[in-house]
Amino acid sequence: MSRIAYVNGRYVRHAAAAVHIEDRGYQFADGVYEVCEVRDGALIDEARHLTRLKRSLKELSIREPMDEKALKIVLRETVRRNRVRDGIVYIQITRGVSRRDHYFPPDSVRPALVVTSRSADRAKAEAGAAAGVKVISTPENRWPRVDIKSVALLPNVLAKQMAKDAGAKEAWYVDASGHVTEGGSTNAWIVTKDGVLVTRPAESGILRGVTRATVIDMAEKLQMRVQERAFTIAEAKAAKEAFITAATALVTPVIAIDGEPVGDGAPGPVALALRRRFHEFAERADG
Amino acid sequence: MSRIAYVNGRYVRHAAAAVHIEDRGYQFADGVYEVCEVRDGALIDEARHLTRLKRSLKELSIREPMDEKALKIVLRETVRRNRVRDGIVYIQITRGVSRRDHYFPPDSVRPALVVTSRSADRAKAEAGAAAGVKVISTPENRWPRVDIKSVALLPNVLAKQMAKDAGAKEAWYVDASGHVTEGGSTNAWIVTKDGVLVTRPAESGILRGVTRATVIDMAEKLQMRVQERAFTIAEAKAAKEAFITAATALVTPVIAIDGEPVGDGAPGPVALALRRRFHEFAERADG
Repeated sequence: MSRIAYVNGRYVRHAAAAVHIEDRGYQFADGVYEVCEVRDGALIDEARHLTRLKRSLKELSIREPMDEKALKIVLRETVRRNRVRDGIVYIQITRGVSRRDHYFPPDSVRPALVVTSRSADRAKAEAGAAAGVKVISTPENRWPRVDIKSVALLPNVLAKQMAKDAGAKEAWYVDASGHVTEGGSTNAWIVTKDGVLVTRPAESGILRGVTRATVIDMAEKLQMRVQERAFTIAEAKAAKEAFITAATALVTPVIAIDGEPVGDGAPGPVALALRRRFHEFAERADG
Repeated sequence: MSRIAYVNGRYVRHAAAAVHIEDRGYQFADGVYEVCEVRDGALIDEARHLTRLKRSLKELSIREPMDEKALKIVLRETVRRNRVRDGIVYIQITRGVSRRDHYFPPDSVRPALVVTSRSADRAKAEAGAAAGVKVISTPENRWPRVDIKSVALLPNVLAKQMAKDAGAKEAWYVDASGHVTEGGSTNAWIVTKDGVLVTRPAESGILRGVTRATVIDMAEKLQMRVQERAFTIAEAKAAKEAFITAATALVTPVIAIDGEPVGDGAPGPVALALRRRFHEFAERADG
């Protein structure tokens, strides 16, 4: 079976799925995206992803290409046509196709919508999480509007590649005051000696992670203590545990930071428990 | 006659010119570009543009899609097929098409190359320059690697649109120390009361503008004094003249900054003279 993508109103073979060279996503990074987990055929935390998507569009004055009801149908249809039971659905919206010019195009230009979906190997993901991941730290060098989930991801690409080159999986950005902002594609967390979960407030400097929000809710329901405050790399290294969250990573333990072990250097029990129970608390939107 | 674009080895109708939805330029802004002026059928300052293009690619560890000789042929052929006598040629190179993942794709993935060319109305451009343009100032909010001419242009798009909304043409970024870095798509200059041309050094914080470099050479040949140093908005407002440079704008006088006139509020004679004589000094590479 070949993969299928939704591109501007049509379901096409993935291999042939294309956008115009003057799509503003291609020439200006003038667009936004979301990645939503699919599990047992259901969209996880879909409402939160769609709320954030709308906010990103609004911040950039990009119109919604279709109403939410229609978009939900496209998401489900893309998942269905790709027979994805466990995996992800990817949504990208750009300001549309127009003769190259920095200024916004005329109102007659319609935003462009691309949706793809693909399967992920659940067993492999679980094995990866059970092993834990290493992170490196790198100076924050992105623009301040990282609260907008835009496709201007070049800095993130470079940071994550730097991590990979160092034998790690993720790069944690550190701001000018020495505090971790977030990872290249994940939010950053620690568990203190007292068992408190700590993650940076989403007011500024980071993306308001959907999985992050669900984990906060979940931790509170499990009567765990959560503090939204910034932390340093030194504090993270000395913490009992560290972990990252994202729609694809879910909750993944961090076992080392800049080559130094976190805790005893093994995935922490709190992170593993949060991962194991995550789907009891995340919202499921069936297809 | 319909426009023609070069896309990954083929000359195709512009209207049908497309790239894959998983081209990393589309999903990650993982690519670079150049815009080169075409005048009387010749490529202006081509060598400088190609040198900068190579540098941008190198900084991002993107391979050159073809050698310089072949690329020059593609540029000329694209200009020729579009019958462009006066206008621009646009080059975009991305890291290629690969299953979405932040990390660099395997070495087997070839970089993608798109070249387009279009005509510009020379008389209209001259009339625009003769009238001068207004600029606004806005806090610098781009990442520090603006020396790389990447397609991660979303901040520039927003700044230029803000200028347009304010009835201006360009936005000048102002850094934390109160100094102008550059415009959203142009370099920034002033002419002091003493007739000295001032523009920010290209060591950091700005793109090493090709037209900027040519204007510096030209001014020196004309025995004008040039100082490469940062200046503030206050200094610019009080200057005798101000102007912007870019491959498309050439030398364009600035007549107002944040609503206040520069000099007597009319295009300055130094800027107009530099514009008029620009092509005597720029390098011409015939097709």
